Amino acid sequence: MLRLKRVRLDSGPQFHAYLHRSSRAVHPEVFPPATRIDVHRDGRVVSASVVHTDETALVAPDELGLSERAFAALGLADGTPVEIDHARPPRSQAAMRRKIGGAPLDAASYGSIVEDIVANRYGEREVAAFLTAAAHWLSADEVLALTRARLSVARRVDWPAPIVVDKHSIGGIPGNRVSPIVIPIIAAHGLTIPKTSSRAITSPAGTADVMECIARIDLTAEEMRAVVADVKGCIVWNGRLTQSPLDDVMIAVERPLGLDSRKLLVSSILSKKVAAGSTHVYVDIPVGPSAKVRSATDAKEMRALFATVGAALGLRIEARLSDGTRPVGRGIGPVLELRDVEAVLAGAPDAPADLRDKALAISGRILAFDGGLGAGEGIARARTLLESGAARRAFEAIVDRQGRNPSPPTLAPHRAHVRAARTGAITGIDCYRIATIARLAGAPAEKGAGIDLARPHGATAEAGDTLYTIYAGATWDLDAAVAAAASDPGVTIAPG
Amino acid sequence: MLRLKRVRLDSGPQFHAYLHRSSRAVHPEVFPPATRIDVHRDGRVVSASVVHTDETALVAPDELGLSERAFAALGLADGTPVEIDHARPPRSQAAMRRKIGGAPLDAASYGSIVEDIVANRYGEREVAAFLTAAAHWLSADEVLALTRARLSVARRVDWPAPIVVDKHSIGGIPGNRVSPIVIPIIAAHGLTIPKTSSRAITSPAGTADVMECIARIDLTAEEMRAVVADVKGCIVWNGRLTQSPLDDVMIAVERPLGLDSRKLLVSSILSKKVAAGSTHVYVDIPVGPSAKVRSATDAKEMRALFATVGAALGLRIEARLSDGTRPVGRGIGPVLELRDVEAVLAGAPDAPADLRDKALAISGRILAFDGGLGAGEGIARARTLLESGAARRAFEAIVDRQGRNPSPPTLAPHRAHVRAARTGAITGIDCYRIATIARLAGAPAEKGAGIDLARPHGATAEAGDTLYTIYAGATWDLDAAVAAAASDPGVTIAPG
Repeated sequence: MLRLKRVRLDSGPQFHAYLHRSSRAVHPEVFPPATRIDVHRDGRVVSASVVHTDETALVAPDELGLSERAFAALGLADGTPVEIDHARPPRSQAAMRRKIGGAPLDAASYGSIVEDIVANRYGEREVAAFLTAAAHWLSADEVLALTRARLSVARRVDWPAPIVVDKHSIGGIPGNRVSPIVIPIIAAHGLTIPKTSSRAITSPAGTADVMECIARIDLTAEEMRAVVADVKGCIVWNGRLTQSPLDDVMIAVERPLGLDSRKLLVSSILSKKVAAGSTHVYVDIPVGPSAKVRSATDAKEMRALFATVGAALGLRIEARLSDGTRPVGRGIGPVLELRDVEAVLAGAPDAPADLRDKALAISGRILAFDGGLGAGEGIARARTLLESGAARRAFEAIVDRQGRNPSPPTLAPHRAHVRAARTGAITGIDCYRIATIARLAGAPAEKGAGIDLARPHGATAEAGDTLYTIYAGATWDLDAAVAAAASDPGVTIAPG
Repeated sequence: MLRLKRVRLDSGPQFHAYLHRSSRAVHPEVFPPATRIDVHRDGRVVSASVVHTDETALVAPDELGLSERAFAALGLADGTPVEIDHARPPRSQAAMRRKIGGAPLDAASYGSIVEDIVANRYGEREVAAFLTAAAHWLSADEVLALTRARLSVARRVDWPAPIVVDKHSIGGIPGNRVSPIVIPIIAAHGLTIPKTSSRAITSPAGTADVMECIARIDLTAEEMRAVVADVKGCIVWNGRLTQSPLDDVMIAVERPLGLDSRKLLVSSILSKKVAAGSTHVYVDIPVGPSAKVRSATDAKEMRALFATVGAALGLRIEARLSDGTRPVGRGIGPVLELRDVEAVLAGAPDAPADLRDKALAISGRILAFDGGLGAGEGIARARTLLESGAARRAFEAIVDRQGRNPSPPTLAPHRAHVRAARTGAITGIDCYRIATIARLAGAPAEKGAGIDLARPHGATAEAGDTLYTIYAGATWDLDAAVAAAASDPGVTIAPG
């Protein structure tokens, strides 16, 4: 028996157990550093990785220290006698190993694997190996089983509405800021559309970054519910509203591995939509060489998987491919993208037509979810709501209700023009390159930074014409972005 | 700048960096717990996982603590000013991600991946994902590239002999203790055979466990060299002679994942043989339902891979399939297996014939490596060396030269007979079941514990005849083994 000690060390989600080298109760050599042990008492148990120490101030020879989160997870008081053992394999270990070995699993196996992962019974290496195998081998049945398993550990939300709409873009396309246009159109029509969005991870802006320029976005679940009750829709950050605890673990592992699995993505997206209380979901799958989905074949497979798994979950899914070969809109970066959004909502004559048309097309499909609308009436209704100003008013209501930003960021002060090296037609705008240059300029951390495209794909440029303007908050960021643009501006001009 | 502090915490191969929550030099929120950082100064760098703390005694707000092994790896003095940054991706990261994504890699990529793994630049999850992918997708070219990469980070040994022989068994078969017979035969003939062996991991005995009953086995590289210079051969533990630093990392990850890849195994074995200075290698591949290799198809694939990769490395390889459907010899457990070995070496009339025959067959093939012997002369020469007592004398010389154990363990005191439930022919002895019961009895930790088979496969038993005797050092171990044998003794008797 050892006395439990809360050690003031926070190792994050990796739980640590501290054992004194002169421990009196156990032989430390039986539990060498990095051994996984179970710390238990009266049926309560946490698994942790052993750390040895001579620091008696941290743990005495008759104590067993736990890092802060492990201590909280065990939920026992300081000084409680506890026992330790070599960690017992999690109940799902055999299934986990079968999957790592490449075998298919049944629904019960996914249930117990997910339960054990969420309960922190696996180390990072097991989760990494499992995800690597799952990224390569998942049948549609397994995607469904995994999605249901995720749901079983998720907090579920429900809404007092028969139709709850959501919209998701697979992403990878700079500019593509349709959500702040679509959500107000749908809300203005009267459908419930509680939208949560992410911040940029590797892109120059996420919808949350753009909305943050004008409104508060870090709402609690209760605040979000109140906003939606009032104005039918919202556009808030998903960071405080984690609906899938498994994703926290999985994303933390997938990202550093560069794991990019459409099947895991479909499972993650659909589990979050169901957990968020959605009944009808529109999924935009941009296809292009620098989009997340690169071939039409892959995109169609993904669309089919969304349909199959979504239907089995009782969701009405409308998944559609879109042109992911070029940016959408003109601005790339939070402030610049918000400018485009507001121009479309205001019906400004110079608003980017591609952004408006894409938002209208998506809105039209979503509005067709409303049984009251006849076939093909959706897009007409969307256009009416936009052109009448109803969508703009809904947007302003959402902003006011979430909390208007009293000091909205402005365009960054340092700027440079990137000019056409020769005369000809613009035949290509490389999404990946443009995003990279916009990030070098400081987006999204610097909200006013980014790229403003002067000429769209298909336009003609004379040598010396501005292709785009780079905005940066600091001269060194501007220099870095300009240097990158000088080596490859990301715009292809075909000699006419 | 932070002052470096050696923190008296040993977290094993997982390096930790300790940051005070009130750090003055950096914003701790930029480096949340579990973030991977580089701690660097003047070109020296280690990567570590961040731990936050309030314990000023551990690290002050202007200090950066490192766990003991990380501190040693960095090699700077306490108090040295250091800087920290988010860990830079290892040079091989792109290649690593391609492999995790299932793509083939070239030799240079394996070189840089292995270098980065050995230098501790990857976390456990990256290594786990890499191994999971590699376990499923490795071409013969990739196995060769990976083997060469392992070799490039291994310590190489060479011997003053034109032919240096090694012998390896893929394992999984209880009893199968041919090495302590083969090595003396080969050494008696005059070929150099410096054999290193492992302890049991999941089996009731490894060759090292068996040899330890009679001789010292934890020799240093220098001691091993002296023994071999004197008596041509040795049979020592490989634990102090790690020749492949990559294996330490890989095995630590593969084992808990249950990863069982023949391709990774071939790469690991061959890299160790080359590093150990071998020129000629005999590989025994037992095939059976509870052996490591379960089908003849798998075994033949493995044999072909040994041949291809071995040839490319300049090794002469003789890989052969053997019967892995049943135990070899009678004793299972260190003392019992040594008894069988000594009986064969002594030419005792009741020595297990299957063990003797297998050892002679392997020795014959190995002796054929000696150009001086004509085709087919190997086995005759092996038999002569065994029957003349030359092999026994070579064994005794090896034992004396390694250091004879002054207090050899004896058979465990508690024993029980497992009897035939009916009369008939013994048509099956389940290796896995027999190994499990022997381990329950205490083998290999209790050297005298194990199982002594009274009747071999194919023999006839009358109801009530002893099938085998269980030996245990403690009554509770005996009880556990007897209970297991009662539920399933692992011996199939077909009614005659």
